Amino acid sequence: MENFNFYSPTEFVFGKGREMECGALVKKYGGTKVLIHYGSGSVVRSGLLDRVKKSLGEAGVAYVELGGVVPNPRDTKIYEGIELCRKEGVDFILSVGGGSCIDSSKGIAIGVPYDGDFWDFYTRKAEVTTALPIGTVLTIAAAGSEGSPGSVVTKEEGMLKRDVGSDLIRPRFSILNPELTCTLPAYQTACGATDIMAHVFERYFTNTKEVEITDRLCEAVLMTMIKETPRVIAEPSNYEARANIMWAGTVAHNDIVGVGRSQDWNSHMIEHELSGLYDCAHGAGLAVVMPSWMEYVMNHDVMRFAQMAVRVWGCEMNFENPEATAKEGINCFRKFLKSIGMPINFAELGAKEEDIPYLVETLGVGDGVRGGFMELRAEDVTNILKIAVDAKVR
Amino acid sequence: MENFNFYSPTEFVFGKGREMECGALVKKYGGTKVLIHYGSGSVVRSGLLDRVKKSLGEAGVAYVELGGVVPNPRDTKIYEGIELCRKEGVDFILSVGGGSCIDSSKGIAIGVPYDGDFWDFYTRKAEVTTALPIGTVLTIAAAGSEGSPGSVVTKEEGMLKRDVGSDLIRPRFSILNPELTCTLPAYQTACGATDIMAHVFERYFTNTKEVEITDRLCEAVLMTMIKETPRVIAEPSNYEARANIMWAGTVAHNDIVGVGRSQDWNSHMIEHELSGLYDCAHGAGLAVVMPSWMEYVMNHDVMRFAQMAVRVWGCEMNFENPEATAKEGINCFRKFLKSIGMPINFAELGAKEEDIPYLVETLGVGDGVRGGFMELRAEDVTNILKIAVDAKVR
Repeated sequence: MENFNFYSPTEFVFGKGREMECGALVKKYGGTKVLIHYGSGSVVRSGLLDRVKKSLGEAGVAYVELGGVVPNPRDTKIYEGIELCRKEGVDFILSVGGGSCIDSSKGIAIGVPYDGDFWDFYTRKAEVTTALPIGTVLTIAAAGSEGSPGSVVTKEEGMLKRDVGSDLIRPRFSILNPELTCTLPAYQTACGATDIMAHVFERYFTNTKEVEITDRLCEAVLMTMIKETPRVIAEPSNYEARANIMWAGTVAHNDIVGVGRSQDWNSHMIEHELSGLYDCAHGAGLAVVMPSWMEYVMNHDVMRFAQMAVRVWGCEMNFENPEATAKEGINCFRKFLKSIGMPINFAELGAKEEDIPYLVETLGVGDGVRGGFMELRAEDVTNILKIAVDAKVR
Repeated sequence: MENFNFYSPTEFVFGKGREMECGALVKKYGGTKVLIHYGSGSVVRSGLLDRVKKSLGEAGVAYVELGGVVPNPRDTKIYEGIELCRKEGVDFILSVGGGSCIDSSKGIAIGVPYDGDFWDFYTRKAEVTTALPIGTVLTIAAAGSEGSPGSVVTKEEGMLKRDVGSDLIRPRFSILNPELTCTLPAYQTACGATDIMAHVFERYFTNTKEVEITDRLCEAVLMTMIKETPRVIAEPSNYEARANIMWAGTVAHNDIVGVGRSQDWNSHMIEHELSGLYDCAHGAGLAVVMPSWMEYVMNHDVMRFAQMAVRVWGCEMNFENPEATAKEGINCFRKFLKSIGMPINFAELGAKEEDIPYLVETLGVGDGVRGGFMELRAEDVTNILKIAVDAKVR
């Protein structure tokens, strides 16, 4: 096991009706003037925004608001938020929405106290040393941003997707009410589930040996998702299934299932180019990229893929031909993705084969490499995307 | 799933050599004058105490020290610590040892700023509202106190074992270096492993339905312990196995595997009377009590015990007779405990059947009941202890 630090100080407030506690929580964590940051009309239409305002009002906390965050959140909205916060003397950001809204809030939180351009943090030109505190009321189980130190933002000019990470932007509290996710359409639900599973797989495929505890914890989250996702697709308002998925989404990404081992993250890196270019849902992009990545890197450690097949997908181990078991596991993953309505190839995603050179170039791998499981050069990324072009369930 | 809060703000600093960071960590969390609290000679002999002092010295942090904590830590030592801290103006407690040492430190931490008798907190006469900050350098994987809000202390007069819980006594940081546990004798290692597994089982046996995510996380920790414990018994200095067990011990008790469900804790409650009376190791007491409790309560939910048998112990499901599978799982647990050198009945523990009435009386169940899986009356506790008298592997 590799040395590690695990630090997840966020207070998670989980369950029915818990959004009514947001005012008291903002107050507990020192906020006096809040920016309520949200996305489109659904939080307005559902009445959630009104409940949040009521709770803030009852706690005597002042607020201003800024809506309009879009999936793959844009830098432009963050500039707007920074300006508003400075003008209004905001000292706490409350995100009401999904991962995009939280990531946008994190951008604002580090931008407000910074003299330069907040984008510097996303291009590694500056390091985060201070940030406004953040709280979240989560409405989509997916990104895990409610318990993570990361933020991914898209620069509108050129549609470049870049990320930043710092413990300073971990939310102080996150309110997780599974009821709020019950109205989510099946496609978005499935995209979220795929993202959750991908967060685990990025950690599961590792070169670190004998990390049984994190292996098993990864498998626990994956098996939960395999059981619960089809249930919510079939019965959107099944509270228990929604609750399991929502908590799994947080556990998948606060790093409790990833400590002590190398992690990969190449599938996420490649997918960011797809959703950057096509503005598709991140989960949908992952459904196309990740199984193709698995096929391509499988021979780097066949037994690890066989372990996934047996322990996660319940395949029989083929002791004479472990490679067959490994392949079967990957096929199970694609079959599962298809069954929950996800695209699994370029055509289903709306991507084009002829864009591959552009995608690879924008990724900027160059002669360099990244990935904690298997390092990839530009040519490897091209090959993975080629597999993805006409991938199908066997 | 039940509504819950999950809050685990401790910074875990895990791996080889990490104790050398304790000075910087104390400083980071605001300590300027430290009480180094430790147990017997082993931390002195191993040189650990010197390394801790060196690290504090390098960080410019002053310290006083108090050793002599014993297993089932006593109130008398805590009174001594409180007095010393007040006299010396200590503002941070650094525990260097196992769970007993941490629990004693927690007692001191809440006692120093309190005007009355610290024992009030353990008898529910007072509620914790403030405490000195605590850090730990862990030397035994067992109690999980390094990441928990709890403390269990024994009142020397009458050997009463009582507990307290508060987020205010969660350690600010905990340093977990598995190397420090490599010299631990096999018996203590096995006691620790039993305690870790018991912490999971107390959460696993629940009346809350459909909490797949925490079920699976519980099973992940248990399967890790089943794989790794025999390895460290056979090869005491196997770092990887020690590391898996050490992290499993923390995960087992910071409540990540227990949220959203009723929890039982009757086995712990019953065991506290055994270790109170006989001063035996807590893990050893649990090895005797817990499988007997399982036998007694099994029919309350046979399918849950069958699930444990199949998913945790790898038993084949007997579809015609689930009860047989459930029983087989419990037998596997006893067999496992015996294989790692644990006692499984009264004689092996050094307990006496004629003490049962006293044990039940001290427990003070009276007409009342406790336990989130199955409520127990005094007569039930008697029956469980009677099963434990001559329990054996089938």
